[in-house]
Amino acid sequence: MKENTLLLKTINKIAVERPPVWLMRQAGRILPEYKAIRSRLNDFKTLVKSPELAAEVTLQPVNILHVDAAILFSDILVIPEAMGLNYEMIESRGPFFPKTIQTKQDIENLLTGDVAADQLDYVYETINEINKYIPGDIPLIGFAGAPWTILAYMIEGKGSKTFSIAKKFLYTEPELAHSLLEKITHSTIQYLKNQVNAGVQTLQLFDSWAGLLSMDQFKTFSLPYMKRIKQEIPDTPLTIFAKGAMLQLEDIATTNPEVIGIDWNISPLEVRNKLGNNYTLQGNMDPCLLYANPAHVFDETTDMCQSFGKNHIANLGHGVYPDTPLEGVKAFISAVKSFRYDN
Amino acid sequence: MKENTLLLKTINKIAVERPPVWLMRQAGRILPEYKAIRSRLNDFKTLVKSPELAAEVTLQPVNILHVDAAILFSDILVIPEAMGLNYEMIESRGPFFPKTIQTKQDIENLLTGDVAADQLDYVYETINEINKYIPGDIPLIGFAGAPWTILAYMIEGKGSKTFSIAKKFLYTEPELAHSLLEKITHSTIQYLKNQVNAGVQTLQLFDSWAGLLSMDQFKTFSLPYMKRIKQEIPDTPLTIFAKGAMLQLEDIATTNPEVIGIDWNISPLEVRNKLGNNYTLQGNMDPCLLYANPAHVFDETTDMCQSFGKNHIANLGHGVYPDTPLEGVKAFISAVKSFRYDN
Repeated sequence: MKENTLLLKTINKIAVERPPVWLMRQAGRILPEYKAIRSRLNDFKTLVKSPELAAEVTLQPVNILHVDAAILFSDILVIPEAMGLNYEMIESRGPFFPKTIQTKQDIENLLTGDVAADQLDYVYETINEINKYIPGDIPLIGFAGAPWTILAYMIEGKGSKTFSIAKKFLYTEPELAHSLLEKITHSTIQYLKNQVNAGVQTLQLFDSWAGLLSMDQFKTFSLPYMKRIKQEIPDTPLTIFAKGAMLQLEDIATTNPEVIGIDWNISPLEVRNKLGNNYTLQGNMDPCLLYANPAHVFDETTDMCQSFGKNHIANLGHGVYPDTPLEGVKAFISAVKSFRYDN
Repeated sequence: MKENTLLLKTINKIAVERPPVWLMRQAGRILPEYKAIRSRLNDFKTLVKSPELAAEVTLQPVNILHVDAAILFSDILVIPEAMGLNYEMIESRGPFFPKTIQTKQDIENLLTGDVAADQLDYVYETINEINKYIPGDIPLIGFAGAPWTILAYMIEGKGSKTFSIAKKFLYTEPELAHSLLEKITHSTIQYLKNQVNAGVQTLQLFDSWAGLLSMDQFKTFSLPYMKRIKQEIPDTPLTIFAKGAMLQLEDIATTNPEVIGIDWNISPLEVRNKLGNNYTLQGNMDPCLLYANPAHVFDETTDMCQSFGKNHIANLGHGVYPDTPLEGVKAFISAVKSFRYDN
């Protein structure tokens, strides 16, 4: 049944009237209804681990903003935690790992595969909970961090502009890096399979720190592991979004994802020229545009839809920023919903 | 006389045996001799404003690391300060502006042009001081921040991953943004002319936050002002380094800089294919590579020189990181100095 939704049709390159629209980070940031739930809890992780509340937060943008897809409310860092590396989410600072991966022994101590993925029952319960209430015409997107991005946090231990500690690890300890990436990949594959079994219809990999890698590093330490994930889960459509790696789109295409996410550093036309017209592309509005007045947001969004043409999932080029005015978000969604393809 | 140095010859596309080498941020970060001077002073800004010490720090990499060029030890944020917007440099956190630009009146209150540039006598004195001691075969590079990057700090007030406050200003107050960019550009032109008059042989513009802009924003709010700077200072060779904007290289080339800086997100081959072989390019080693063992650094640096071919200034693709081991820096420099072009 979900095959007939606007998102799945677009992914499957079936003709539709307009692009589907959703926003990365639509759940868990911008809605007052989210903030009300969040304020009742001590921390972000409690919310992630509470299936009923996480399901409610997942569905808020569907019910309130009328986006065309729901994305599971969760966090990419549940995978390191499931593998045995605990983290804290520090208010307004971001994630922090009290212990980081430094040695071969640290890597050997990590759980992997289904043993790790089985730690994440609360995610699968959240998916079950969502599916009790989600409208029939709205698909549910599951996700995980791409292996390089997960490794980056496990080595660096926190957010960073450069992730220089993690990149140093790639340069100085390439064998250990590969063995850690193997374990992350193995866990992620099982985790995503479990999400599919629990009831998501499509998957997205977020390679948030792809843009920090040199081209060789991206080819060596990121790409092969994303390719493996796609190979192991061939039947569920996959979106790969490698933020900041817009010069590597041809490489990303070799992983055979159904959808490629693009950020606002590149024009849809340039991507179509590089990859051909048959790819479904997702993106790519600058999240900062949503601060502008709603009429301007509407016009720019219409232009964006026009630039992509068909086979497009309207979205931002990054997660929506926490202080984005709702009027901007609504104008973005409204513009996409008003748009029609020429024929 | 400085025309015969390896750097100036390379900029002027005169045949040389090997690329010249210097490192962005070579002064003021990595050398123990720098740290010894810095530790005697209360703060970074005192050092910037002390011509004798700033000159000493400028020359340290020449005398100790034997790079082929010196770059003035200073800070891009001296321009906002000269325009009337004071800042603090907070240890291990970065710059902080107690007051930021928010209104038309704030912009009108700013000094501009020679009135602003005249506040920076300590910079010109530093250049005089450097020229007393700099070896005859070593040119001196002057620099400034590109106008968009300077505006970003003046609006945002501090470093940021997204500079969303500054970008919001571009989207919501484009006219104010242009009037502020005019004032910054006017001041920067006079500042760079004064640097040339004081005795630098070549100039670099750092557009450190270019990569955060959408393509349209880059074309509208960054590019025209860099173009103006080049037009107003036609006789001094200019390097433009727009970090993260490697998809905009063709646009950058329209500003007619003598040298284009590139980061490690793009291969020299791809840049040569886009821009032709006659451009002098500067870059582009990942600064994180210098953490690797020296033999590996040496080999990768040799490969980099080979990939660029002629008309190349060997450098990193960003400023050297503060905790970079000196052995890595030395291996990088040594590899370039050992390299020879095939004919």
